[in-house]
Amino acid sequence: MNLEMIHAAAIRLLGKARRTPLLHSPFMDDMAGRRLYIKAECLQHTGSFKYRGACASISALPDEVREKGILAFSSGNHAQGIALAAQQHDAPAVIIMPSDAPELKLANTRAYGAEVVLYDRAKESREEIAEGLAAERGLRLIKPYDEPQVIAGQGTTGLEIAQQSRDLDVGAAEVLVCCGGGGLSSGIAVALSKHAPDMTVRTVEPEGFDDTARSLAAGTRVANDAKTGSICDAIVTPTPGEITFPILQQHCGAGLVVSEDETLRAMAIAFERLKIVIEPGGAVALAAALFHGNSIASDTVIAVASGGNVEAEMFARALKTKG
Amino acid sequence: MNLEMIHAAAIRLLGKARRTPLLHSPFMDDMAGRRLYIKAECLQHTGSFKYRGACASISALPDEVREKGILAFSSGNHAQGIALAAQQHDAPAVIIMPSDAPELKLANTRAYGAEVVLYDRAKESREEIAEGLAAERGLRLIKPYDEPQVIAGQGTTGLEIAQQSRDLDVGAAEVLVCCGGGGLSSGIAVALSKHAPDMTVRTVEPEGFDDTARSLAAGTRVANDAKTGSICDAIVTPTPGEITFPILQQHCGAGLVVSEDETLRAMAIAFERLKIVIEPGGAVALAAALFHGNSIASDTVIAVASGGNVEAEMFARALKTKG
Repeated sequence: MNLEMIHAAAIRLLGKARRTPLLHSPFMDDMAGRRLYIKAECLQHTGSFKYRGACASISALPDEVREKGILAFSSGNHAQGIALAAQQHDAPAVIIMPSDAPELKLANTRAYGAEVVLYDRAKESREEIAEGLAAERGLRLIKPYDEPQVIAGQGTTGLEIAQQSRDLDVGAAEVLVCCGGGGLSSGIAVALSKHAPDMTVRTVEPEGFDDTARSLAAGTRVANDAKTGSICDAIVTPTPGEITFPILQQHCGAGLVVSEDETLRAMAIAFERLKIVIEPGGAVALAAALFHGNSIASDTVIAVASGGNVEAEMFARALKTKG
Repeated sequence: MNLEMIHAAAIRLLGKARRTPLLHSPFMDDMAGRRLYIKAECLQHTGSFKYRGACASISALPDEVREKGILAFSSGNHAQGIALAAQQHDAPAVIIMPSDAPELKLANTRAYGAEVVLYDRAKESREEIAEGLAAERGLRLIKPYDEPQVIAGQGTTGLEIAQQSRDLDVGAAEVLVCCGGGGLSSGIAVALSKHAPDMTVRTVEPEGFDDTARSLAAGTRVANDAKTGSICDAIVTPTPGEITFPILQQHCGAGLVVSEDETLRAMAIAFERLKIVIEPGGAVALAAALFHGNSIASDTVIAVASGGNVEAEMFARALKTKG
């Protein structure tokens, strides 16, 4: 993964990915104690940045590979990104999803034209099912973050941040990024290292699932104790990626960690002040900007609001945190 | 009010007003039965299109008038637009608001640097207070819609729709606009009459407050029976404006009318599919696109989501309309 791959991905995404706005509210500046911009990637197609990586990776495949079809396992944002991008490239897509996934997510993935293969989380291994399907039908597996073209696609978010910041005369800044496996964080970090070298990426994770922050501190990849149990389901991964972690080590500052309550309050504030919908996993970066100012040095901070695929019940819960 | 005023307003708004995105969802195309784009003006500064008109009118004033100060009466979106635009132009702003206005709206208006003058809705006339203040302090009153420079500012939304549609190869379309006094509808109509002549503006109002639809049908301005009682408070006006109505008559198709339930469902669908927050008065155009397809002739429809200033309780109520 390198800068040239991000540039090439940006060209392939032209006219496909949305150039999401960089939003701002004077009220939120006051709360953050500094200038705060929000990259509203929840407004991306399929409701999250994952569409970028999906589209970048599918468009990079040789025709004969793409025509045979794409395979992914995900119950969340990566699945929808892959399904839509495959449809746009006339490629068959098979998504392996748990049989107890929410009905709406199954319906959405199918509506984008993908074939959904269900598996029993308790009894079956999705990796084994994927291997079998890939061999049998000649499908190409696209992993959610440890995949160079996926990282390159997510990195196009960084190109936009660099350009939009320049338009606003923003110089030095810390760029807070919601972090699961590190695909978005590492892609943005590589893009900014060239195009906005005064900016530093900081990963942000929820308490209890801070494998990236601890790995960066330890200098080696460590794992979370728990595998599930966070409201931030979109960014819960066992450990940083093999490809992403060295990039994060090279470019990023110390990782930040926020609580569930701070995450829900950030969602409510984004509702009130920006009129955007953010899911818990997409709100941790904003939560860090709003509530962990003591851990931030720069006068300007840019928080990536990475996704908005949240159920109505959870969103209503977030709204109740407002005084 | 004419096209040249809209062009001039667009130049004055450069670098101030946000160029809001034109959003799209294949799921919403299916619901609407045609191609549907949403102009997300809820993402505008202060959460509604009103900032455009406020900024256009304040920036058009001679220095010596602006320096003495701006006056407005409004408990809603116009107040916030005026307060922010006045602050940006270093002009004092006085906003006359009812003493029973929600605490948050009072706080917001003050936070933008405006002086808030409270009045008792039951016992006092805001028009008399405004006249007194204007005379005493030499303030310039800016009305919410029957003001040429305000209409010109709102018309810049139409310039953006024309340009963004051209980028998407959209030709003929009906453009549905949430309508109160008609400032936004008439401004957009004038802009499109030149820059997208294959497009037709259709006003949209809530049931029981459809003065514009009935006025267009009657060929003369008629009033609503009720003055209050709609969840769409932002677009409840007694009758179309004196300046706006002739423009609507010249350019617009028949007015559309939607129910409260349709409005709330449109808010929930925008939450789920677009990840944006729309207030009831800003959702009626989308509701018409989704639920009144039989009254629309064109293959493509563009709905303006004009504002997003909604209380958490009302938004939670909208989310409950989802299946």
